[in-house]
Amino acid sequence: MTTKQEKGCTLWFTGLPCSGKSTLAELLAAELKRRGRGVEIMDGDEVRKHLTKGLGFSREDRDENIRRIGYVCRLLSRNGAIAIAAAISPFRAIRDEVRAAHEAAFIEIFVDTPLEVCIQRDVKGMYKKAIAGEMKNFTGISDPYEPPENPEIVVHTAKENARQSAAQILTALEHRGLLAAAVTPSYTEEEAEKIRRRLTDLGYIEK
Amino acid sequence: MTTKQEKGCTLWFTGLPCSGKSTLAELLAAELKRRGRGVEIMDGDEVRKHLTKGLGFSREDRDENIRRIGYVCRLLSRNGAIAIAAAISPFRAIRDEVRAAHEAAFIEIFVDTPLEVCIQRDVKGMYKKAIAGEMKNFTGISDPYEPPENPEIVVHTAKENARQSAAQILTALEHRGLLAAAVTPSYTEEEAEKIRRRLTDLGYIEK
Repeated sequence: MTTKQEKGCTLWFTGLPCSGKSTLAELLAAELKRRGRGVEIMDGDEVRKHLTKGLGFSREDRDENIRRIGYVCRLLSRNGAIAIAAAISPFRAIRDEVRAAHEAAFIEIFVDTPLEVCIQRDVKGMYKKAIAGEMKNFTGISDPYEPPENPEIVVHTAKENARQSAAQILTALEHRGLLAAAVTPSYTEEEAEKIRRRLTDLGYIEK
Repeated sequence: MTTKQEKGCTLWFTGLPCSGKSTLAELLAAELKRRGRGVEIMDGDEVRKHLTKGLGFSREDRDENIRRIGYVCRLLSRNGAIAIAAAISPFRAIRDEVRAAHEAAFIEIFVDTPLEVCIQRDVKGMYKKAIAGEMKNFTGISDPYEPPENPEIVVHTAKENARQSAAQILTALEHRGLLAAAVTPSYTEEEAEKIRRRLTDLGYIEK
């Protein structure tokens, strides 16, 4: 439920596997909900379950996957919600196609984490497999990643922690008039614990 | 954009082909938008284009088609929008599954038009083909239609005109607190003309 003053938008994260997209998406979603906004995260897993069962990892299927995420984000954002996409979305042309279809604001957030840092994190051990040649079409290793040319926001997760990146994004949304300014962000203990675990797994913070 | 007072909901039309679902959906959507609500229509064509390309007409594929419509309606409705589904959705079990997954109100609207009336309308000539045995899996002829057992609203398009059915649905939504009461419905000339053409095509009104 939103108020008449608040406009919906799509926050479109893009970046390599393990760059930090989902972590940032969750951190942001928790804070946006705390501020009373309607938020939906469309990440790869959510979407493969509900919208794209049966699609594979060919270029064509990956494009279709991103188009469907884009379509749902478009509907949500033009109805006042904040739609957060947290899929890799490696190809520039499809991201631009999704942007062009949007009525509400489309904010592309490039999670600019160097490949070597992503390989170090390797949360699910997939880089290891891809480097060993056991995984085809793995973005960054056996498949290209095309960084955005003019993203609205760039964050550097190798140089700042996730909270700093999230704060930077919130400030940018406030400046664009998409979000009312808040006093101080805060989380419930349960949310804080979940975020800590995730950050630890990703190597953002020490165990 | 919605106000804090307004709750989202899903209006789930179900009925035979040519029963009047899309006509009623369009009529309702125009009036709801006039009242300042965010509205999205998920009909068969829209969905096949954006969400279910590649799915066919087997029982399994039709179920998946309906699940995806249900998923998008669920996301929209829980964010304050009014999601209108206008696909045939012939199977009770899947409709109930979609209902169970909803957080917002799920209003099932049974468009209870007798098969013989639908066959007479036959907007796209598909009943003719199905009766001639040229179309497999055509609901009502070569595939079953399971009417809902406890729909929130039933309309009889063979006994009343589309405006009367739409007015009945609006009143039901007002009574359920899902819609603020309005003074009188009105349409722009362009909308009125589009609706007239559609109603004429469907045989609701004389040429």
